[in-house]
Amino acid sequence: MPVLIVGSIALDTVKTPFEEHADLLGGSASYSALGASFFSPVNLVGVVGDDFPPAHIEFFQSREIDLAGMQRVPGKTFRWSGEYMLDMNVRETRSVELNVFEHFTPRLPVGYKETPYVLLANIGPDLQNHVLDQMQRPRFIIADTMDLWIKIAREELLRLLTRVDLLILNDSEARLLTEETSLVKAGAKIRALGPRYVVIKKGEHGALLFSEGRFFSCGAYPLEDIHDPTGAGDTFAGGLAGWLAAQDGKEVTFDLLRQAVVFGSVLASFNVEAFSLTRLRTLTQNDIDARYEGFRLMQQFELLD
Amino acid sequence: MPVLIVGSIALDTVKTPFEEHADLLGGSASYSALGASFFSPVNLVGVVGDDFPPAHIEFFQSREIDLAGMQRVPGKTFRWSGEYMLDMNVRETRSVELNVFEHFTPRLPVGYKETPYVLLANIGPDLQNHVLDQMQRPRFIIADTMDLWIKIAREELLRLLTRVDLLILNDSEARLLTEETSLVKAGAKIRALGPRYVVIKKGEHGALLFSEGRFFSCGAYPLEDIHDPTGAGDTFAGGLAGWLAAQDGKEVTFDLLRQAVVFGSVLASFNVEAFSLTRLRTLTQNDIDARYEGFRLMQQFELLD
Repeated sequence: MPVLIVGSIALDTVKTPFEEHADLLGGSASYSALGASFFSPVNLVGVVGDDFPPAHIEFFQSREIDLAGMQRVPGKTFRWSGEYMLDMNVRETRSVELNVFEHFTPRLPVGYKETPYVLLANIGPDLQNHVLDQMQRPRFIIADTMDLWIKIAREELLRLLTRVDLLILNDSEARLLTEETSLVKAGAKIRALGPRYVVIKKGEHGALLFSEGRFFSCGAYPLEDIHDPTGAGDTFAGGLAGWLAAQDGKEVTFDLLRQAVVFGSVLASFNVEAFSLTRLRTLTQNDIDARYEGFRLMQQFELLD
Repeated sequence: MPVLIVGSIALDTVKTPFEEHADLLGGSASYSALGASFFSPVNLVGVVGDDFPPAHIEFFQSREIDLAGMQRVPGKTFRWSGEYMLDMNVRETRSVELNVFEHFTPRLPVGYKETPYVLLANIGPDLQNHVLDQMQRPRFIIADTMDLWIKIAREELLRLLTRVDLLILNDSEARLLTEETSLVKAGAKIRALGPRYVVIKKGEHGALLFSEGRFFSCGAYPLEDIHDPTGAGDTFAGGLAGWLAAQDGKEVTFDLLRQAVVFGSVLASFNVEAFSLTRLRTLTQNDIDARYEGFRLMQQFELLD
């Protein structure tokens, strides 16, 4: 089954202590869509300018990512530039040019409105709500968000939360949204705002999944080299959503979501091994399955006698 | 089998955003010894002044913690005072009074020299080496350390590393010692310095165990309330060492160490639920086993079809 993904499509300039690259394919929708495409077809909703390289279009199309919902308008594509410090958990945004994104209003092609799985990747909650307004009874709705929207669009975000099944956000965002230091309390408070499930991402420390009275802790796969953390969270969300959509319409339970969280983590762990989407371009199903097994081995230990 | 534990015994003053308590029983050896005592008898080596409350002595004795190696000398007991910020991962030391600890030289009673398991809790590496000089062929040696010793006693610490089986340190200390950002690379580099096994603690994010070509990721148990993180690392090391010592002399393998890391994490997760050693005073074997099972449930997910 397909998954509808809406978010930003960007051209990024990324600097790390070791390398700098300009005009990379980026944006929350690009990473999420590619992550999901390893498991299910994607209906992509976003906007690009007339400077968007045809090679990126062809790349999306080569991956069963449908572009009927991608608007191409006069002007320049959204651009983001950021720099990572030696501790790659610390990032500084150097510049943001909204360009064509500034007046973006997502419009769903008729064929998209019944997509059963929805991933509202990181964009303003007003746009996320506007997409849901156009959908017809989706089976499972996932939303990602960020600190900016918690700060400047809290009311709109709270309205969104009453409409989604799973919210994904990182630990500092969960603390910002709930004013709770404990992630357990933060998870419970967010669930009380609407979503049945909450995933709190902890960057290089993995992710926690919460449902009623239960939680799952997924470690991050220890890597020798992290080249570019950009898009790790988006790839995680995309991998999770795509894998869920590929489960033949099985009911989404806590147990199924645990596996989805691991698959999201697998995708994210590959993504950071190279700049932009480079590593995902050559990733195979065998690579994915082998690392899923690696996650299992890494987390297992013996029962008590 | 017994475990020998050497380290500091202190009277702590601890302030959090919510509470402040003075003259608490603390120090690396106190926390480690109590953690270990849930599994095996402890031979404690340390020093206290003549102001050390008899109630603490009686408490140690009530827990099968042998005090023949605890020196009681004229003067004041080591005192430490610290303050936690609203983000309890951030701590500021307010004052340190070495007092009787300043001239401490650990001397092992004859009966201690053949103790099969050794935990060199966090004290200067010169003292840790001095304890090993007095031991007769211990089966398994664990050392804990901290950033201070990496900075001011690196040579002595490197000499210690050639003599221990397992080094325990936290993530920032591992990065400081090896100048590697990646914890995988840091773990490998530390192993090359001597210890067959390395545990890197990540505070509220759990711990990683490394051996040759293998690793184990143990999450931290998500808690609703953290009242006092003081001694969590020491309790972890003590629980780990005590559980290993209780395994009937079984060879220490990676698989056995994985379980030991979980038991250490279980003890640490209880310890932070109250100030000082308060929570551990009432902890039962049933509590421990139930949370061990909680760790297993929290980390498990389904195999691939």
